[in-house]
Amino acid sequence: MRLKKLLAAEAPQQNVEVRGWVRTLRASKEVCFIELNDGSCFASLQLVADRTVDNFAELAHIGTGACIKASGNLVDSPAKGQRWELHVSELTVIGNADPSYPLQKKRHTFEYLRSIAHLRPRSNTFGAVFRLRNALSYAVHQFFQQRDFLYVHTPIITASDCEGAGELFRVTTLDPANPPKNNGRIDWQKDFFGARTGLTVSGQLQGELFATAFSDIYTFGPTFRAENSNTSRHASEFWMIEPEIAFANLADDCQLAEDFLRYLVKYALEHCAEDLQFFNDRIEKGLLDKLTALADATFSTMTYTEAIEQLKNSGQNFEFPVEWGLDLQSEHERYLCEQVVNGPLFVTDYPKEIKAFYMRANEDGKTVAAMDLLVPRVGEIIGGSQREERLDVLTARMEELDMAPESLDWYLDIRRWGSCPHAGFGLGFERLIMYLSGMENIRDVIPFPRTPGHAEF
Amino acid sequence: MRLKKLLAAEAPQQNVEVRGWVRTLRASKEVCFIELNDGSCFASLQLVADRTVDNFAELAHIGTGACIKASGNLVDSPAKGQRWELHVSELTVIGNADPSYPLQKKRHTFEYLRSIAHLRPRSNTFGAVFRLRNALSYAVHQFFQQRDFLYVHTPIITASDCEGAGELFRVTTLDPANPPKNNGRIDWQKDFFGARTGLTVSGQLQGELFATAFSDIYTFGPTFRAENSNTSRHASEFWMIEPEIAFANLADDCQLAEDFLRYLVKYALEHCAEDLQFFNDRIEKGLLDKLTALADATFSTMTYTEAIEQLKNSGQNFEFPVEWGLDLQSEHERYLCEQVVNGPLFVTDYPKEIKAFYMRANEDGKTVAAMDLLVPRVGEIIGGSQREERLDVLTARMEELDMAPESLDWYLDIRRWGSCPHAGFGLGFERLIMYLSGMENIRDVIPFPRTPGHAEF
Repeated sequence: MRLKKLLAAEAPQQNVEVRGWVRTLRASKEVCFIELNDGSCFASLQLVADRTVDNFAELAHIGTGACIKASGNLVDSPAKGQRWELHVSELTVIGNADPSYPLQKKRHTFEYLRSIAHLRPRSNTFGAVFRLRNALSYAVHQFFQQRDFLYVHTPIITASDCEGAGELFRVTTLDPANPPKNNGRIDWQKDFFGARTGLTVSGQLQGELFATAFSDIYTFGPTFRAENSNTSRHASEFWMIEPEIAFANLADDCQLAEDFLRYLVKYALEHCAEDLQFFNDRIEKGLLDKLTALADATFSTMTYTEAIEQLKNSGQNFEFPVEWGLDLQSEHERYLCEQVVNGPLFVTDYPKEIKAFYMRANEDGKTVAAMDLLVPRVGEIIGGSQREERLDVLTARMEELDMAPESLDWYLDIRRWGSCPHAGFGLGFERLIMYLSGMENIRDVIPFPRTPGHAEF
Repeated sequence: MRLKKLLAAEAPQQNVEVRGWVRTLRASKEVCFIELNDGSCFASLQLVADRTVDNFAELAHIGTGACIKASGNLVDSPAKGQRWELHVSELTVIGNADPSYPLQKKRHTFEYLRSIAHLRPRSNTFGAVFRLRNALSYAVHQFFQQRDFLYVHTPIITASDCEGAGELFRVTTLDPANPPKNNGRIDWQKDFFGARTGLTVSGQLQGELFATAFSDIYTFGPTFRAENSNTSRHASEFWMIEPEIAFANLADDCQLAEDFLRYLVKYALEHCAEDLQFFNDRIEKGLLDKLTALADATFSTMTYTEAIEQLKNSGQNFEFPVEWGLDLQSEHERYLCEQVVNGPLFVTDYPKEIKAFYMRANEDGKTVAAMDLLVPRVGEIIGGSQREERLDVLTARMEELDMAPESLDWYLDIRRWGSCPHAGFGLGFERLIMYLSGMENIRDVIPFPRTPGHAEF
């Protein structure tokens, strides 16, 4: 039986069998205590074996990390901090582990644990991280499915390079030592897809296509950035959630983002209580208070223009300049939500120059219907916008930016026939997990992180 | 209100508002009929507008594909085949469509619809396909989450090339026209990840790592094949589901596969009745009978060796040879499940030479603990195995196959410390959708298919 179910027992149980990996073992001549974990929950089960067990002499040779099977009775535990323990009648070693096992009982740095990313899920911290990741994944689907959003798998390989081609990984099967050439230049028509292709940076554009057929859709899949930046918040491969809603404006978009984030936080508080308690105790003091506050918080809204005024009048000495037309930096974002509104904050209507071409132009001619959701301690966690649904306005904007409208004919087509106002946003899944766990490095919330120089495992 | 909810109404409704896209429009001098669809369900809603509507004269100019908003009363419909219709009091054109709209009311070939993959979701067939895809995605998660399996995001970019490097797409940021070289050869250490990397063909190996920490896990993500094959069953990018279970043998694996497939079929029958009815009527006659039979079927089991005997004694003239040691072809698989057992069939214990290095060696020295699940009309739909958990046996097998064990040190490590029997399988998600819808081309069950020469949209 899985430990999660067993440890939730309301009464003692006869003859149960458990299987898992040894976290610690203490053996004396008379008795042997083993902490067993099977990954189903944070807690381990204490196994107590005495000399009545047939192979008692063997037990002292079981190493940390060994895989074992044990059966016996689940009884009240006299030990502190645990309700149950298992009195072992039979114990079998399935796969032993010698002292070279890298996860011995001691404190390891996260850096070291990254180098054994194949074993770190067997530690307390990473067991909790990946259970939280699992729970939140499911919560994402539940939230959208309950609201009848259609889940769409947008393509990973893409020939569309409109969003910053410089950051695209190239996908190719051409012989790198001897690529086919035409007039001295690489002949991409001879590549696998008959075109130059790369890994997607966002499923939004394709998501919009589906929103104009199914009304409400969402994506949840891997996205990529070939940015050579080694920060604790950037990975080359990460998962993103991007809903897109038809017949919606920026206010509807903000409402959806608020409902979504609130749902996820409440879901985690309800379904991952044990893991969050660990994060609260060992990773980020006050985490539970922070999350509880967010779950009940009022979400404020402020335009970018108001935000700039607030920052200018703040009397604060910011590292980065505050000027209408410049992007907000993390320090500004945190000041706004922590000091000004003391809670989550939507900043809306940014200057068009610092936002993407597809965002809907406002009447003022200067700003677009964009929003960022800022949260205390982190800053931006969600970014979205109403999309430009007017064909002539969108085409003109693309030309202004030297983008060839023909290259995105399919994207323009949904403005050509049956166009409608629509909006959406993106949430980086790893940013969410970092926020909900207090983990400070994105490498520590992805099973096998990919960053510059690293694609191990 | 979304049409799915509205059409499920049990009583007439006053003053409701609907939004969607015009499928057809018939206008006379006195009345205008519009079929409106919003993608939330297969059925369209009939709007009936007469001269009491303010802009009645304008309605005749609404084109197929236009996006409109209408309000009025939902009343009993006198028309055949529909319970409700909407008597329009107000109608607004949100985005019109002129006659150049490519999805005019007529029968289009699937080939043509692939060329407008951004618009085909607005057709009956592809609306149904992508709603089914959505429902099955959620069913996959529900099945595993109910059983406490942990969802893991295995990496898309991988430096491990053990599974047929020839079929790997290369992922790179090197300048293709002038790649860095070392002694005349491309210097992969200078590539983004400091190594030669490609797109994953399977998350299984990494899934195994997580199974030896969390016991039961599953992956559900995109996988890739750079195979230059233009068949109706192969795509370069597709989604795969790969569960991995610790403390399990081949029989446990078969049981899980049976439970899983049965669950998905029942889920579709229950949640996608309207869409399946359409597939049954228009795409594959007898589909509903086929699925109902599968949901209740007994799953048979037969070893590969028995299967070869059955085929040899069948008196059939097969196109491909039947010989112990050769792989089963589709015609053989279909004969076995359609003619021999008349239902789904697990074929187990294949010759080791035709299966992957990681499959567990049987006692006979000739076969491995592999299984394929064959279903009538399709053949193989699931393939899996018990994995070799014995370090020495696995290492010896790798050496036999000229694979360097060091290259998969991390994979061997979980056999080194705390090894345990474990098993898993893979289900190609598109194959499943094809089976459940009767759609015959994989390009028609993926939103934006990637195949040789094609990465449009």
